[in-house]
Amino acid sequence: MAHITSSVEYGIHCLLWLVDPESGQPSSRDLAELQGISPSFVAKIFPKLEKAGIVQAVAGVRGGYRLAKTPDKISVLDVVDALEGRKPLFECAEIRDRCAVYAENPPAWATQGVCAIHAVMLQAEEAMRECLARENLATLARTVERKVPPAFFVEVRDWLGDKSRRRVGARAKASGEDP
Amino acid sequence: MAHITSSVEYGIHCLLWLVDPESGQPSSRDLAELQGISPSFVAKIFPKLEKAGIVQAVAGVRGGYRLAKTPDKISVLDVVDALEGRKPLFECAEIRDRCAVYAENPPAWATQGVCAIHAVMLQAEEAMRECLARENLATLARTVERKVPPAFFVEVRDWLGDKSRRRVGARAKASGEDP
Repeated sequence: MAHITSSVEYGIHCLLWLVDPESGQPSSRDLAELQGISPSFVAKIFPKLEKAGIVQAVAGVRGGYRLAKTPDKISVLDVVDALEGRKPLFECAEIRDRCAVYAENPPAWATQGVCAIHAVMLQAEEAMRECLARENLATLARTVERKVPPAFFVEVRDWLGDKSRRRVGARAKASGEDP
Repeated sequence: MAHITSSVEYGIHCLLWLVDPESGQPSSRDLAELQGISPSFVAKIFPKLEKAGIVQAVAGVRGGYRLAKTPDKISVLDVVDALEGRKPLFECAEIRDRCAVYAENPPAWATQGVCAIHAVMLQAEEAMRECLARENLATLARTVERKVPPAFFVEVRDWLGDKSRRRVGARAKASGEDP
């Protein structure tokens, strides 16, 4: 399994649909169906994004999710940490103190500070995290907008609006009300 | 499991003992015993390092391993790639073409170029790899040398030399020769 899993890929794809304020507040099921991905998998992603303060749940039959802050305040790193936890790139087993020469009595200098190998891994992790922190939902949405024809966004809004209306209609029908 | 596993940690620790040309050419078992780590685990690491051109196997009863090039030519990234393979940080599931709006007929622009999310992950991976490529066995050995008293290296050479002599002695005794 890759270090950054498909939870993050699916999560960011879902969040990008919420950048357009005219998309309403789609449910996680609507977002899964829109993208042809597993609704149960997406349903597990959103509570984590909500817990991390990235999205807000909106109650009610027209309810779903919206971004909890402006897209430029939600970095790719925020999403990675929300969905993966603060997963280290490398876990140091700290073998420095086992050298046979120490005869089970390692001197203080042997374990002082961070192991030189671990230090390199931490630098590499920091470089990776800085890169992920520089990009956010706003910069990603601009990249997408550059390649997508404007009509597509209208079609998506219509598709999501239609889904929302059908949900309201189905709920009203079930309770015998006029939607 | 972390992205960079303990194979790399053990591998680099082992290689650092080979930087000192006076350490001889220890066997993988000697290096494992010196460091108090699993000999069978270390035995699996060395063939991969040899295949990648990082170490050379030296045949014979005094045989073992030595570096195949100078320590400044062996980067941390070389060791990571040799032991982990070229493992991606992120595997893109390429879900862009599944959007319900396309009705199973995605337009060309939808899948053109690299997905914007994947592109960010590739940048982060590149930043991580650049960092790992900047450090090598020579820079790491200098960091270690700054904190370790010179007498320690002498003790290690003696320990490894003793191991090698005992191996020769045991082999000679088994074959009835004078070692």
